Parts: sequence; structure tokens; C-alpha cells
Amino acid sequence: MLAVTILGNNSALPAFDRHPTSQVVTMDDQIFLVDCGEGTQTQMARYKIRRSKINHIFISHLHGDHYFGLIGLLTSMGLLGRTQEMHVFAPAPLQDIIHLQLKVADVHLPYALHFHPLQQEGILVRESKFEVSCFPVFHRIECWGFIFREVRPFRRVNPEKARQHEVPSSFFDRLKWGEDYLRKDGVLVSNQLVTEPAAKARSYAYSADTLFDERVAASVKGVDMLYHETTYLKDLEQQAGKRFHSTTTQAATIARLAGVQRLLIGHFSSKYEKLSPFETEAREVFPNTELAAEGVTYKI
Amino acid sequence: MLAVTILGNNSALPAFDRHPTSQVVTMDDQIFLVDCGEGTQTQMARYKIRRSKINHIFISHLHGDHYFGLIGLLTSMGLLGRTQEMHVFAPAPLQDIIHLQLKVADVHLPYALHFHPLQQEGILVRESKFEVSCFPVFHRIECWGFIFREVRPFRRVNPEKARQHEVPSSFFDRLKWGEDYLRKDGVLVSNQLVTEPAAKARSYAYSADTLFDERVAASVKGVDMLYHETTYLKDLEQQAGKRFHSTTTQAATIARLAGVQRLLIGHFSSKYEKLSPFETEAREVFPNTELAAEGVTYKI
Repeated sequence: MLAVTILGNNSALPAFDRHPTSQVVTMDDQIFLVDCGEGTQTQMARYKIRRSKINHIFISHLHGDHYFGLIGLLTSMGLLGRTQEMHVFAPAPLQDIIHLQLKVADVHLPYALHFHPLQQEGILVRESKFEVSCFPVFHRIECWGFIFREVRPFRRVNPEKARQHEVPSSFFDRLKWGEDYLRKDGVLVSNQLVTEPAAKARSYAYSADTLFDERVAASVKGVDMLYHETTYLKDLEQQAGKRFHSTTTQAATIARLAGVQRLLIGHFSSKYEKLSPFETEAREVFPNTELAAEGVTYKI
Repeated sequence: MLAVTILGNNSALPAFDRHPTSQVVTMDDQIFLVDCGEGTQTQMARYKIRRSKINHIFISHLHGDHYFGLIGLLTSMGLLGRTQEMHVFAPAPLQDIIHLQLKVADVHLPYALHFHPLQQEGILVRESKFEVSCFPVFHRIECWGFIFREVRPFRRVNPEKARQHEVPSSFFDRLKWGEDYLRKDGVLVSNQLVTEPAAKARSYAYSADTLFDERVAASVKGVDMLYHETTYLKDLEQQAGKRFHSTTTQAATIARLAGVQRLLIGHFSSKYEKLSPFETEAREVFPNTELAAEGVTYKI
């Protein structure tokens, strides 16, 4: 199970009942919060996101529409009696802001809040069944994208064939990772004889706020689904560049260059009430594009 | 015209579609924002509050449910092209928080933001037709209440009588403030001969978050309407005291001691879904009590 649920798909200002950026990525029984604009805790309640499943929060950059809801969420979790540890991954100055806000309120959270400043491209969280990594994107201030990958064996054991070839079940886990089995009688059982290809491990990339840059395509190469911002329609390419944002055509071009399966677009400017032209324009370049709609879960 | 519109009537956590504390006070053609919990900008849009009329914001204290929406509102105003000056009155550390948040985002507001740290009881704003003052209340951290008063003459000129007694119209403004008129022929025209009592200048007090303390009654003595918090029903008086909050009975007692005309109660704990018991309990002590309902404007 890998899926993303959109809590906010708008840029900068709340408008037309669209909210600033936030989304949750579900991997198995864990939920990862990605960005946290103002009102995210209310959106979570509206869409019945289980906060107790969230132990990791990733903040791409320190423009308000991506994090002003974080301090409210963290303090509410405290008021609701949370005791589990929480890990926040974000640009370094966020730690000072949060600490200052807790200090002036004389609030002591009842849970441990671990702050991990984002410093370089690479893996942030590695657990048995998934990993999360970050990569730089190109915005007016320091900004990071995130990739969520399932970690799973790439072969599936055929137990009947394994028994025929006298491979003990204690070796099955190693078969799943592609090892051959050397029998005590010296016979080498080739992995391919007793396994089949497993379902592919899935991946999702969130590329945050960025101008059009082919390095983003390189970073997200081959993911199953890419979320790319489309603040503007294609006629405003110049404005997009000046503000370190992207257009529909640019987002779709990145998806094509990266060879992803699907493209999800969001971070729409408040100047647009109707969103359908975003989908139309992006599909001209990358047909498998969908608008990120609030409250909708996209399974990967 | 003096009126208050409730944008948020809940304490601490958003719950049951109730929002954290915020309200706007309208005096003639100006709007004053009082506290600004998370989501206030969205509540303003919902209830069609005209942001361009807001030039003064008052923050009672630095618990998040009273100010986490401020930075989002201030930056949105900038994005929407505001150029008018804005005055924020709040406990001193808020200035550091706002400056830090603007700095890390590399945001430069297109309008002047004047920060006025609250330091002592007294008048904060004095204009020709109104004044706003602050007074200390008694919470876990530094906390202030605010009083909004119309400034208006207390006599109304009867133009016919004034003419009969040969008072020139150029003296009418002074008549309104109670002066007698000395005619050139030496006759003293007593003010009461040519004026009548004017409508009383109205006043509204917001007493923020506070435990029960008779000094609050002294500070708000005689106002037309008092907003007093009632975080808890009366059976939780002990808990209220421990958390520096008040119960229904305590709020109503303050209203009675202060001799106010009307009491508005709010800041309800998220533990209560039904609010009618708050009204019932408060009215036992102070009959002219109303629940502060979101989106409702209370004229004073």
C-alpha cells in the first residue's frame, strides 16, 4: 500500500475553498505528513486522517503556505495527549521558530520532538519496508523534494518448486532478494528456478516548489508517481520563472523526461478559479496527468 | 456603530466546527481584529470581513490558539497588495517570532508593520471617535484584555433653542461637550437650556483568558458589553483555577460585579460538544448572557 491524500492544493493564499499545501503519504500502516500549511489540522479532521499514525513530518521549505499549520498541529497533538516520538525533517531555521513559539507560550510537549535539519541529498528514514529520501529543488529559498519508496524483495518464492529443489523454508527470505541456494550435496539451485518476479516496489516523489529544471527530472527518474507544482498555466511562463515556480507544460515536461508513470499536479495560483485548463495543458505533453484534488487519495 | 463579530469561540483545539479565538470589533468604518487563532483568515473570508478596514490588531497573549493565524494573515495581506500601515499590539516576544518568520521566508511586506509591545495598563489608540485601552488579566502567561470605547459628545444641540438664545452655530461643537455660552451682551446661556442628553458613548470589553479575579471586574466596570471566557462549566471550577481559566458562574459573577449591561461568553473547551448548558449556568447568576456564536455580529 502506497498512496497520497491531498489536504491542500493551492499556492500562497487560501482561495475558492482550496487550502495551502499539505498532503499525507500512506505506506502500509504509517502516515507521513508532507508540508503543513495553515489549517492542515482542520483538513486532517475533515478527511479523517489518523494523527496517531503520523511519526514523521517533512517540510519542503519555509514559505508560510508550506508550514504555518505545523506549530498548531504539534501543540494540538500535545493537548490530545500524544506520547509517541515525532520526527520533523525541515530546513534548519524551523527549529528556532518552533522552539521560540513553545517557549513564549510556556508549553512543554508531552512527547519527544526530534528535529532533523535537511542538509544534503540522501536518505532520511530507512525502515524495513520503506525509505524516504530528499533531493534539492530550485526555489527562491532553500527547498527540498521528497521521495517515498517501498523497500520490498523483487522475487516471490514458489514454495512448491522450492520444495522440489530441496530449498529449506529458512532460506526463503534470501531467495526473495535474489540469492541462489547451494545445497549440501553441492548442487547450486538457481534463484530463477524457484522464484518469480514480485510486484515492483512502488515509489512516489513530491517535488515541492521549484522552477523548471531538468535536474529535478534526474532526481525523480522512474518513480511511479510524481507530484509537481503547476502554479501557473503555460502563458505565464515568464512570471513562473521570475517567481521560481513552474507551469503546466514545464511540469509535464519534467514528468516526460523523468519517465514516470503518472503525474499529479497542484499548488495552483489563487488567481485561477477554474482548474480544468491545468489538466488540459499538462496532458498535451504528458497524457497520464491528474489534478491533485483535496480530500482525494491517489493509490500508487 | 459599535459591534463585535465572533470568528472563533473555541479554546485550544479546533473542534465541532468551532475555531480558535478571534473576533472583530467594528467602530464606525474601522475594524479592529482581536486575537487571531489558526484559520482566522479563512473565517474572515467566510464571514465577509473586509480586511482593508483593519489597521489595528490586538493579541491578548501568546498561546497559539490566540495568535497562530496572525503570520498567515499578515503575509496574505502582503500578497494581496496591501499598502496601508498596520499596527499590531501584543506581548513583546511576538515581534521576534514574526520577524524570524518573515526573515527565513525572505518575505518583505509591501506595507509598514508597526509593532507595539504591550507594557502597561492604559490607552493604546486614541482617535477622534474612539479609543482602545488595555488592562492586565490573570493567566498562566502574560495576558491582556482590551476595552473599545466610543468617544462622543454627551450633549446634543437643539438648534431651534440655540437660535432663540442667540448661540452661533460655530459654538455648537463646544455645546456638545457641555460648555455654557457667554453672549456678547454678557448673558450666560446655560448649556442645559439649548442641549439635550446625547446617546451614551458605548463600550465593549474583551477580557481574554483569565482565571476568576475581581480585579477584572474593576477594570471593565460599567462597559455595555463584556466578553468573558468560560472555558469550563461550573463543576470544573478547580480545573479552571489550575489552568488559569474561568467557569460560567465565575464569568457571570464578574459581569455582575462590574455592573455591565450584557455578557457574551466564549472560549469553550473542546471537551464540550453541546454549549447550551453554558448559557443556562451563566444566566443563573447574570441573566443578560449570550453564547458567542461564530459568524454572529453582536451590536452594542
